[in-house]
Amino acid sequence: MVQPETTSPGALMAAEIAEQPEAWARLLADGRAAVEDAARQVRRRSPRFVLLVARGTSDHAALYAKYLVEVRLGLPAGLGSPSTMTAYGSRPDLRDVLLIGVSQSGGSPDLVRSLEVGRAQGALTVAVTNSPGSPLDEVAELGIPVLAGPERSVAATKSYTAELLTLYLLVEALRGTEAEPVHRLPDWGAEVLALEPTVAGAATRYRYAQRMVVTGRGYAYPTAREAALKLMETCYLSAHAFSGADLLHGPFAMIDPQVPVLTVAPEGVAGQALAPVHAQLARTGADVLTVGSRAAAAQATVGLALPANIPEALSPILEIVPFQQLALHLARLRGTNPDHPRNLHKVTETH
Amino acid sequence: MVQPETTSPGALMAAEIAEQPEAWARLLADGRAAVEDAARQVRRRSPRFVLLVARGTSDHAALYAKYLVEVRLGLPAGLGSPSTMTAYGSRPDLRDVLLIGVSQSGGSPDLVRSLEVGRAQGALTVAVTNSPGSPLDEVAELGIPVLAGPERSVAATKSYTAELLTLYLLVEALRGTEAEPVHRLPDWGAEVLALEPTVAGAATRYRYAQRMVVTGRGYAYPTAREAALKLMETCYLSAHAFSGADLLHGPFAMIDPQVPVLTVAPEGVAGQALAPVHAQLARTGADVLTVGSRAAAAQATVGLALPANIPEALSPILEIVPFQQLALHLARLRGTNPDHPRNLHKVTETH
Repeated sequence: MVQPETTSPGALMAAEIAEQPEAWARLLADGRAAVEDAARQVRRRSPRFVLLVARGTSDHAALYAKYLVEVRLGLPAGLGSPSTMTAYGSRPDLRDVLLIGVSQSGGSPDLVRSLEVGRAQGALTVAVTNSPGSPLDEVAELGIPVLAGPERSVAATKSYTAELLTLYLLVEALRGTEAEPVHRLPDWGAEVLALEPTVAGAATRYRYAQRMVVTGRGYAYPTAREAALKLMETCYLSAHAFSGADLLHGPFAMIDPQVPVLTVAPEGVAGQALAPVHAQLARTGADVLTVGSRAAAAQATVGLALPANIPEALSPILEIVPFQQLALHLARLRGTNPDHPRNLHKVTETH
Repeated sequence: MVQPETTSPGALMAAEIAEQPEAWARLLADGRAAVEDAARQVRRRSPRFVLLVARGTSDHAALYAKYLVEVRLGLPAGLGSPSTMTAYGSRPDLRDVLLIGVSQSGGSPDLVRSLEVGRAQGALTVAVTNSPGSPLDEVAELGIPVLAGPERSVAATKSYTAELLTLYLLVEALRGTEAEPVHRLPDWGAEVLALEPTVAGAATRYRYAQRMVVTGRGYAYPTAREAALKLMETCYLSAHAFSGADLLHGPFAMIDPQVPVLTVAPEGVAGQALAPVHAQLARTGADVLTVGSRAAAAQATVGLALPANIPEALSPILEIVPFQQLALHLARLRGTNPDHPRNLHKVTETH
């Protein structure tokens, strides 16, 4: 690995984006034992409900896991609101509940407290973090490291995709199968990284944009959320994510040709379910950038096609990468430093 | 009731905002029997987990109910993603689950299908709608009408607060108590409506704003979400809601004195929990409008104080009202018609 030039704006973020295929390969080689060990202990407890708690970028990984749990494990799942157990002192009955905390740093006090209370209330608690030995890891019954390596840019990238892959492996271990050829991820990742010159060119289009809308459905909705967060924290623009369905229930009113729209339309159900949204966007004359299947990309103003035949459940790990690159290049064009956004620190302590 | 002049922009929305105290009084007088009957049947089944499904404005009512269920019923709760059961064909094990669909029209096909599948998978299903006899009401085992009366403005107002109050009454009936003096709501509502001249004056401040950030925590977070949606759909601006905690995890980077911030800081835990956010906003020199307690309002650039001593659990029913008025007046100033936003219809059909 080339040592990044830390004085150049976004050097850390650029290096960490590029490292992702390597991080996934490491996780696939060295991370499975911890996942399988945790899965064995979870199966022994036969949970009936799954709750996930997380903040920021990790909350989008938790949302991806929620879809996997509902669709693949056939269990009802929810995203917990940490404040109910912290600020409001709620003590819910969590027997038969699997409570998963997801965090890069493992340090946010409200998540630590949620897992602590959850465990006392009968939940089986699991910490998925990039920081073994962190407070979240310590307080949970089971800990699974995502093995992304130290992340130094404030804008999280490799820890996000490593969280996604870890949660995918956990769900597959719980159902005792592995439906997708995960070993191909690093190669697919290299192909997606090669989109960078096209993304860098597209970034100039948004140099003066003040607001953007990002949309996706199903497994691709967490990608839309995370893409919007990257753009907000690195470019200081108002990037607003909606599920395709929610967009049609109200927020669509604010879309006109002056508001760029970014869509996530991979192969599979998520891309197909976005068809009515694309049709409505076309009627409105909206300016659309699409990351997704060749067919969807071909119809957009700016199309960024993913490699063909990527299984939908793995697609979120890959489809976020062009958005990370877009955030990086747009931030540089706008003269901000995505490694150190104003007003932010790497570890955010919320209570 | 005075018949609104339907040709004046926002006449329907204005009338429906003003009708709210009357709608709450009607619900308190005529709606309790249906709530109590439903509560009896829910108690008989002793659910262990609560799922809520909804779209748009009703999704914010569902989020309020999620907090109530977690804090007051001590049950884990989640917001369902309808697409997992519709687009992905998931068939989760929903025994011991209470599945509540919330919808003004009761007509969205994906919600109807979610309740249909949920019922077949063992959930006890309840429809909370403003449309008895609607498809959602028909497909659910139990139906509770919110009795808001016909809502004609595309921007939902009175159906939202009636949904909040219905869900409050349901949770209180389930735990067999009623902690707050709900009978005072109509009077408090009249006091809040009287803020209108101040709100109308404040609206001029945002005449040319392109983007806004709205924030609240705990019970006040659904208010922030709904306020943002009203502003988006009526004023076509990018209004972005964050829980106070999530705001500090990334999006805070985009806030500077050019981005107006609206905060919801009622008396109680939700307002107290927002203190670190207010402190950070002050350091950033942000322009802040606050709806909430007298103390919080006094510290804002524009303060809209609610009546004193409103119990926190009821506060969301009241604190949304000034935001509805703000959306109405700002839309008029900007020359749009909030009764008929571009690109939207009253009933949105998503699949």
